[in-house]
Amino acid sequence: MSKDGEDLHLWRNARLARLAGGHAGPAPAGLDIVEKGAVAARGARIVFAGPEAELPAGLAAQAATRTDCEGRWITPGLIDCHTHLVFGGDRAREFELRLNGASYEEVARAGGGIVSTVSATRAASDDALVAGALPRLDHLLREGVTTVEIKSGYGLDTATERSMLRAARRLGTERPVGVVTSFLGAHALPVEAHGDKEAYIDLLCREMLPAIAAEGLADAVDGFCEGIAFSPAQIARVFAAAKEAGLPVKLHADQLSNLHGAKLAADHGALSADHLEYTDEEGAAAMAAAGTVAVVLPGAFYFLRETQRPPIDAFRRHGVALAIATDCNPGSSPLTSPLLAMNMAATLFRMTVDECIAGFTRNAARALGRLHETGTLEPGKYCDLAIWDIERPAELVYRLGFNPLYKRIWRGS
Amino acid sequence: MSKDGEDLHLWRNARLARLAGGHAGPAPAGLDIVEKGAVAARGARIVFAGPEAELPAGLAAQAATRTDCEGRWITPGLIDCHTHLVFGGDRAREFELRLNGASYEEVARAGGGIVSTVSATRAASDDALVAGALPRLDHLLREGVTTVEIKSGYGLDTATERSMLRAARRLGTERPVGVVTSFLGAHALPVEAHGDKEAYIDLLCREMLPAIAAEGLADAVDGFCEGIAFSPAQIARVFAAAKEAGLPVKLHADQLSNLHGAKLAADHGALSADHLEYTDEEGAAAMAAAGTVAVVLPGAFYFLRETQRPPIDAFRRHGVALAIATDCNPGSSPLTSPLLAMNMAATLFRMTVDECIAGFTRNAARALGRLHETGTLEPGKYCDLAIWDIERPAELVYRLGFNPLYKRIWRGS
Ligand SMILES: [Zn+2]
Ligand SMILES: [Zn+2]
Repeated sequence: MSKDGEDLHLWRNARLARLAGGHAGPAPAGLDIVEKGAVAARGARIVFAGPEAELPAGLAAQAATRTDCEGRWITPGLIDCHTHLVFGGDRAREFELRLNGASYEEVARAGGGIVSTVSATRAASDDALVAGALPRLDHLLREGVTTVEIKSGYGLDTATERSMLRAARRLGTERPVGVVTSFLGAHALPVEAHGDKEAYIDLLCREMLPAIAAEGLADAVDGFCEGIAFSPAQIARVFAAAKEAGLPVKLHADQLSNLHGAKLAADHGALSADHLEYTDEEGAAAMAAAGTVAVVLPGAFYFLRETQRPPIDAFRRHGVALAIATDCNPGSSPLTSPLLAMNMAATLFRMTVDECIAGFTRNAARALGRLHETGTLEPGKYCDLAIWDIERPAELVYRLGFNPLYKRIWRGS
Repeated sequence: MSKDGEDLHLWRNARLARLAGGHAGPAPAGLDIVEKGAVAARGARIVFAGPEAELPAGLAAQAATRTDCEGRWITPGLIDCHTHLVFGGDRAREFELRLNGASYEEVARAGGGIVSTVSATRAASDDALVAGALPRLDHLLREGVTTVEIKSGYGLDTATERSMLRAARRLGTERPVGVVTSFLGAHALPVEAHGDKEAYIDLLCREMLPAIAAEGLADAVDGFCEGIAFSPAQIARVFAAAKEAGLPVKLHADQLSNLHGAKLAADHGALSADHLEYTDEEGAAAMAAAGTVAVVLPGAFYFLRETQRPPIDAFRRHGVALAIATDCNPGSSPLTSPLLAMNMAATLFRMTVDECIAGFTRNAARALGRLHETGTLEPGKYCDLAIWDIERPAELVYRLGFNPLYKRIWRGS
């Protein structure tokens, strides 16, 4: 034990991708590499991350544990900043029917579509929601995830939305991982609303959101702005209610068409705008000005066989920070591999290796408003590490269906 | 111990996808499902696979071990029938350079392309080749693979081709898995041939192939028929030499253009023709007539961002058996996940769930000429099983980056 009561842990003989900086404005280039590096943590927090030769002798002497990383690479623990990890049922049957040539009506008659996930989620207990999500969460953890965002949005009534968010919070006690929650009541219109989106948004702003905020169940408020979901005006009302409740906002924007969702999100100071396949130059400029992170979701792009790619070049030109996430969800991205999401971002969107790695670390932390505590290897932050059996960082992005994780450290252990 | 000296093992309370039949002609439809099933093996061989209620009482009484599968699904162990698992070096750096916008010349100057893999493979010892391939093989095994095909083709000289095939054989002693080898000397032209493809094919037919066949290092002979590789006439010479040596043939055919490689392969009675993006109706008809299996490789299609899909409908119409493989290789498909390959076959090629599962079991066994001993759950075959934690087979295909394997059984244990 050190003088202040917390053990000092040391990881040495490692190569570091620190990704330091990037708290605001354009993201720094490169991975901030240290070839012969060491990381020291006191309790949950990093106290040193840099060249081993510069490690203060006093720190080295205090180490309670001392891990020789044998030249392995250390990155910040991965951060999956957009998931729908908690839900009831699955949609494998629907997937199969579609491949067999079933029509939209046949799939609907067989109980497919988001309606089926809403029904299954409403029917599930908190325990069942947690039990269903754990194997998915465990897969994320096996690939080095130390922080995961989890949305509600398959309840679409106050009771089930609360249940989903409670389940999400519980996942963070069942496993050593940081959980950040988003209330996504404005995900779809429930059947019982009989097509009346305005009335549902009324209910959401007046009852659902305040109740959930009062209970502290949500860290942010999300919405789905799209013809098949909610209009920009309806989303603006949700954002106003979020502001009222003191919660930051984010948005599923411009996925299937350009409703100027990215600009809407930026105008409301959103943490992130996500998907963004149809975002235009003006949207990218507004995001840059507001510091809104662009979260791309190549798993959904792949699974839905989309052809319109998000405007990565425009985001680069304007200096928008780019994050990547799995979007794990049963309908459009049943993906639980951050490494595969990185490969898809590179292969399908032509993002660089450095962008892919920053997209699952520093920029993902920023998309969650958690860059002050995780996402980079910097003193003062949580010691969230992924230690990899690789020769160069590009291997994390290049390979398909291969997991070189050696060890995952969450908050120092 | 049973009377004939081999233990009897029983797996009960399982759901079976037996995939029985399909030894010739059009593949049977469906997965041959048994809802309340049991599998019994004496030593390495299946003695029963069917409804638990029909399990002979005598067998049940003899069981030395008795596994309650608790309703889990059992499929035949997966068979990856097209891989380049053994090679030196990796191509992650090249992948990174390309994403950074490097030109073809810059990549070549930085040592990229197949030339770099040939150099690294020639420089590697047998031990190094085995050590390099083991993590890739282990990933395949973790997803239920019980038989894997491994090609040479990065040596392009007799010594290194032998070394690759020896390494492949050794992988089958280092791990509990069946290894089937293919000699792929006709993969690319080595630098020292100075562009003279005819002279290299002379050397291959006169010296390389006979030497490798004499040593028993190859179970089949493969080639790459393409403008950037070898012509149909050159491949025909390789096939003639293979016939001389008593080895079956297969072919990388019609991947980037239609040189009628599928028909060429079929005309030589090939076990399989692989890739097939540009195969035409006549090629599909010839394959059906010859019983040549169509092996599709969606990992390479994805990684190379191809847009021309193999003619799945034509294969269906003609009754060609469809198999799927990872094509694991460093240049165009660094893929070690059969489950991801299945999802890609479904998502990108619109193959059905049943086709995807048959493509990694029964039809893959047929593509290797091993359907008499593995690939289905039938008495007399090796007891190669994959036991899955799933509710329905569609989950194996639907999910991305998720591995529900519960247990893998190779030759009864
Ligand atoms: Zn989403
Ligand atoms: Zn190949």
